[in-house]
This record gives sequence, structure tokens and C-alpha cells, in this order.
Amino acid sequence: MTDPINLRDKLALINDHWRPRLLAGLNAQEVKLAKIKGEFVWHKHDDADELFLVLDGSFTMHYRGRSVQVREGELVVVPRGVEHRPVADQECSILLFEPAGVVNTGDAPRTGLTRDSIDPV
Amino acid sequence: MTDPINLRDKLALINDHWRPRLLAGLNAQEVKLAKIKGEFVWHKHDDADELFLVLDGSFTMHYRGRSVQVREGELVVVPRGVEHRPVADQECSILLFEPAGVVNTGDAPRTGLTRDSIDPV
Repeated sequence: MTDPINLRDKLALINDHWRPRLLAGLNAQEVKLAKIKGEFVWHKHDDADELFLVLDGSFTMHYRGRSVQVREGELVVVPRGVEHRPVADQECSILLFEPAGVVNTGDAPRTGLTRDSIDPV
Repeated sequence: MTDPINLRDKLALINDHWRPRLLAGLNAQEVKLAKIKGEFVWHKHDDADELFLVLDGSFTMHYRGRSVQVREGELVVVPRGVEHRPVADQECSILLFEPAGVVNTGDAPRTGLTRDSIDPV
């Protein structure tokens, strides 16, 4: 990990949506890359704060009662317990930072979007 | 923190070198922004892995016996206990991710570069 990891090179290897890939681990946290498009499910993580950094494109983060647009070069932190739902009208590339072992759909009922494990990119 | 934070807007507020600013906190970790230029000191963190993501420019991360160039859009993770020394010939903007409370110069003797506390940006 002491060698540089190029985000664009790694993004080029991802050809699906809503399936985060592991980029690096540190301090019991994980750095992940994902491409997203379309609507995700409403969910929350009871024990994990979650950071989303937009590398390409933009998406809308819905919270109960309001939403924010997150654009390239912007990040949001969703604190534990806060219900959220990312929606991307166009494909958007994001970097995620969260504790190791977080399941992407949190407390929501399992769906086809649920990923229990994560592959490296 | 559920509102977007724009990295370029925040970087525009930083006019010094080697003084990280707090951008966000999550899971007992901190996300920081810094501009760096020139040579830092050799140091390590015995209890903290440290992530450096280059937002603008590039810098050289020296390890004992070798060094790597880290360019815009690239990240490195320096595991705990690994001696390192960042050097930037030209000004470089970086995002840092590490546990809350890390002192920038680690185990090195205190110098003018040492920052015990961190201000928000």
C-alpha cells in the first residue's frame, strides 16, 4: 500500500453499478470505489459513519425531508443512524470511506443491491 | 456534515504549508486538507495508518531505501510504524485521512513544523 494507487486507473476497471470495490484498508476502515447510477434503497448504518467523495459526475443524497446535490470534488459525511438514499441520474464515480465490514444496504431488507462481501479492484 | 463540502473552496482558504486543517470527522478518524511545499521531517506514527490523496500537483513520499512519486488523483497509505518523509518540489494539495489526534510529525523531535492541534478550514 506504500505504492501509489491511481483512482482513474482503478475506476476504469469497474463496469457495474452499486458494487463497491476495496481500494485500501487502514485503521479498521476501508476505502472503496464505486460507480453508481439510478436509485439506491433507503437505509442507515447504526454503527458506522460513511463518507462519500464524488470523483466524477454528481448524485443526489436524499435524507428524510431534504436532499443535497453532491458534485465532483465534493464530499458528504452521513453520520450513523441517519437515513439516506443516494440517487444518480447519470453514472457517477465515488470514493467511500467507512468502517471495515459495513454492508452497503445497512438496515434495509436485503435486495439485489445488497453486497455482503467486497472484492478488491 | 450532511451538507456537501467542496474541496476546492476549502483549499482556496489555505495559504500556508504543512498545517493540516480539519475538514470532517467520522468513526474516530479525521479528514484533513493541507498544502505542502518543501521537505518535511522523517517520522512515523506508531499507532496510526495514514492516507495521503493528492488533489493538486504531486509530491515524493520517501521511505527508508526507496521513494515514490504521488500524483494528482493518486493515494498512498503509510502503515503504522513505517518511517516516511513527504517532499514537494512545488506546492501540492493533499487530503489526509487518519485517526483523530495524530500529531503530524509523529515520533520525530518537535520542530517548527509540529502541529499539536488542528483548526477547521
